[in-house]
Amino acid sequence: MQKVEHIGIAVKDLNVSVPLFEKLLNTFCYKLETVENEKVNTAFFKQGETKIELLESMNADGVIAKFIERKGEGVHHIAFEVEDIEAEMQRLSNEGFQLLNEVPKEGADNKLVCFLHPKNTNGVLIELCQTQK
Amino acid sequence: MQKVEHIGIAVKDLNVSVPLFEKLLNTFCYKLETVENEKVNTAFFKQGETKIELLESMNADGVIAKFIERKGEGVHHIAFEVEDIEAEMQRLSNEGFQLLNEVPKEGADNKLVCFLHPKNTNGVLIELCQTQK
Repeated sequence: MQKVEHIGIAVKDLNVSVPLFEKLLNTFCYKLETVENEKVNTAFFKQGETKIELLESMNADGVIAKFIERKGEGVHHIAFEVEDIEAEMQRLSNEGFQLLNEVPKEGADNKLVCFLHPKNTNGVLIELCQTQK
Repeated sequence: MQKVEHIGIAVKDLNVSVPLFEKLLNTFCYKLETVENEKVNTAFFKQGETKIELLESMNADGVIAKFIERKGEGVHHIAFEVEDIEAEMQRLSNEGFQLLNEVPKEGADNKLVCFLHPKNTNGVLIELCQTQK
């Protein structure tokens, strides 16, 4: 683990939340991106070396829509940057953490990602991410 | 806002969660601190320029104990570093955000802090913090 790469926040409507976070963070959204395989629209803000990633579901039964139904809008996950995602997945698996995907998958922002089950991490959904070369 | 200073995570028991986060983050807890006025015990980890702060309630009716009762363990707040907390409180108040304390108060880690009401920030409890000189 090297740094907090981003913090993912589940929101209902980017049209509302992008201007809201622009006011809050006093900085402009610098990128909008759709992640087809996760069915989410994302919006990115920079804060030092960390990004704030807003996540809006593309459909009513997507993972973000279901999260909001269950818990309301709010922090969805914390992503840590790793240098070698496969080595880090192996290390964490050996330590008893449960990986939610067995091989790295494509995430937003040109990353390979893997999530850890929050039942082993005090309820925090953790994402590992490695920038693709 | 300059960077994500720390991410606060509500946990039931530091005796369980400190070794767990040491394994997860692959780094040692470098500081334990009690914040008497908030009735919390805290444990700190470094990840790049950001800290992970675990928060354990000192009593059953503390704010962290109540949070866990309502929502379970998990991310409690995100703290952004600011240079001049009073100026930033004024700016955010003018933008329509609701401050949870009208003057900065003493937080952990030698900080002056102010929280924003999560009803205006998509459910995310935001802390502003400024290092005390």
